[in-house]
Amino acid sequence: MAPQPTETVDTATPPPTAVELTGAIARIREYLERCKPATPCLVVDLATIRERYEELSQAFAGAKLYYAVKANPAREVVRLLVELGAHFDVASPPEIDLCLAEGARPEQISYGNTIKKRADIGYAYQRGVRLFTTDSDADLEAIAEAAPGSTVFCRIVLADTGSLTPFGHKFGCAPDMATQLLAKAAELGLTPAGVSFHVGSQQLDPRAWDAAIEQAGEITAKLAAEGVELTMLNIGGGLPGRYSRPAPPLADFAAAITASVTKHFAAQPRLVLEPGRFLVSDAGLLRSEVVLVSRKSTVDDKRWVYLDVGRYNGLAETENEYITYLLSTPGRDGETGPVCLAGPTCDGDDVLYQHNVYRLPMELRAGDHVDFLNTGAYTASYSSIAFNGFAPLPTHCV
Amino acid sequence: MAPQPTETVDTATPPPTAVELTGAIARIREYLERCKPATPCLVVDLATIRERYEELSQAFAGAKLYYAVKANPAREVVRLLVELGAHFDVASPPEIDLCLAEGARPEQISYGNTIKKRADIGYAYQRGVRLFTTDSDADLEAIAEAAPGSTVFCRIVLADTGSLTPFGHKFGCAPDMATQLLAKAAELGLTPAGVSFHVGSQQLDPRAWDAAIEQAGEITAKLAAEGVELTMLNIGGGLPGRYSRPAPPLADFAAAITASVTKHFAAQPRLVLEPGRFLVSDAGLLRSEVVLVSRKSTVDDKRWVYLDVGRYNGLAETENEYITYLLSTPGRDGETGPVCLAGPTCDGDDVLYQHNVYRLPMELRAGDHVDFLNTGAYTASYSSIAFNGFAPLPTHCV
Repeated sequence: MAPQPTETVDTATPPPTAVELTGAIARIREYLERCKPATPCLVVDLATIRERYEELSQAFAGAKLYYAVKANPAREVVRLLVELGAHFDVASPPEIDLCLAEGARPEQISYGNTIKKRADIGYAYQRGVRLFTTDSDADLEAIAEAAPGSTVFCRIVLADTGSLTPFGHKFGCAPDMATQLLAKAAELGLTPAGVSFHVGSQQLDPRAWDAAIEQAGEITAKLAAEGVELTMLNIGGGLPGRYSRPAPPLADFAAAITASVTKHFAAQPRLVLEPGRFLVSDAGLLRSEVVLVSRKSTVDDKRWVYLDVGRYNGLAETENEYITYLLSTPGRDGETGPVCLAGPTCDGDDVLYQHNVYRLPMELRAGDHVDFLNTGAYTASYSSIAFNGFAPLPTHCV
Repeated sequence: MAPQPTETVDTATPPPTAVELTGAIARIREYLERCKPATPCLVVDLATIRERYEELSQAFAGAKLYYAVKANPAREVVRLLVELGAHFDVASPPEIDLCLAEGARPEQISYGNTIKKRADIGYAYQRGVRLFTTDSDADLEAIAEAAPGSTVFCRIVLADTGSLTPFGHKFGCAPDMATQLLAKAAELGLTPAGVSFHVGSQQLDPRAWDAAIEQAGEITAKLAAEGVELTMLNIGGGLPGRYSRPAPPLADFAAAITASVTKHFAAQPRLVLEPGRFLVSDAGLLRSEVVLVSRKSTVDDKRWVYLDVGRYNGLAETENEYITYLLSTPGRDGETGPVCLAGPTCDGDDVLYQHNVYRLPMELRAGDHVDFLNTGAYTASYSSIAFNGFAPLPTHCV
């Protein structure tokens, strides 16, 4: 049976088209039927990641794609992307080790975290990594000392970009400081590659990149006038996955970004992208089991549906209900009613949705399955080690 | 050197008295000096847990203390509490296994999670557990079938109680429904023990228990009139740890709660407490290392201090900045200035404090230590399995 993504009341939730999703879901459902793995679990369809990678490569022809490993560090996912010729954006030494173990060459790896211990920079250098991102004087000096001769991007901080999961001001520096740092990089014997930025994960507005690209163009022009040539532009991640709020097609993002670069740069830079969610989210289906359906009083019309997955074993991105997943309840497709959805721990914050009112079948009961669609990104990797005794979410690849 | 807890600007932060904390911190610092474990790490002083357990046993003489294992499931902590004669409030089969492995007898265990798979109830029963908490018809019937003859508490839902980490409406049912469920428990061959509730973790108001105790008294009286005798009252957890906002002394909570029970109950019930944070928070010190100190622009007076611990490897309770830990920077005690504090991942939400403006020494730099005091509860147990490649927070007990 084709899945019927469940409607939400507060947000528009068009069902994804059968053409786009049936292949992945059919393969995942076949696996679930055949192997009956314990719930909760995440099943990732590798063919969908391959499709997304090829789609992105075509939309940004000539760009270098650095997969943001943190989105889904499953070995099979990294291995597939190595085979496809991807590059890798890593946050830590263990992510470097993972990529190398799965066959990546060091020159395919970018240490994109601006927060790095000097010892970790040295470790990366020793393993052959020669590309780093920085946003501060202290980090730049550490790179120059522990990874001499390397290439660096400098990240700029952006005003609020309207992303569903904005970065705030944790990363990046003001444009003036970025200009100084890139010039200083050259003085320190490093190769300044260009400006980087991030418009925020799950960005639904194709125009959100424009202001940052304009700033990057200005910095690049200013440094060119000083004799420091930047040849690249790192536009980060942010391309969306498919959740309840519809996202524009990839072509819209590619067109808007390409137009911005053409407009704001005198010489066209080589583009770098750091896609995470876009490559893997649609490839995943998280299967959970209903633990309990209850009401809080005899007159309450809203049911509470408790699942064996919650915020601490896979669904961390439901924090503040920012990410509203599409749901499917296989085998239950009758009349629906409003529910609060919550996880299995004794933690009062382990509630998935109560402000976004989801509707689920009235006949839903303990033992039924609830599938979370497009959960390939930022799910298993956020799992707690065993909060309340519940094991981390396992990943199965098909 | 005695630690100097760092002031915050937005919240009152009196330094804890030397008498209360010097012992634990001195022992932990001695361990850190001697063994130099890798950072970040949590060090737990078992003697402090023993003190808190004895303090609580005296304040609530005659009550049964069920340690909420989820607060800190380190084996050494559970083993110590077994030795002290504690009971255990568990949330899942792995927590049952943990307690039994550390020497608890099944009759010391309460399966306090109202969200339970039938198979998990059966597993608990098979391991000898005979005490459960419920708040719904479906769960009660599952207990009657899978754990026949067991004893049950029924949890009621409370209005907002002013706790710093409120439970909302995830747990408990309305008083009328609780009355029905406890009566039905008796009909199903179970032993209805009494009402349970939770006023929210880190509760700073000793009067917060009164309304719930009044409701429990009414339910108990109503059922007595129907011939169903409840002999116990489970007042849950909520007793506070010591963070930046000062908490009243334990004696104030004990006096207020005891007075409420006397006032609202005709026959005095046996009290059950489920302390987690109160027993273990003050026993822990989380040592972190400064990864980077930077500014976002040349004119910014506020520094960003990035640590090797963040929301995803130990400090989950800084979500929304609800819990404001006391900090100490050993060896650095000069002039201070305002900082934003953030963790090491590439995640924009991995910021500890930016609205509560902490002040840290101006001379603080990469490689220095920042110690988070009173972090024995709800830290290591929330750690992600390896988000961004960062390992879960290890615990060392002294």
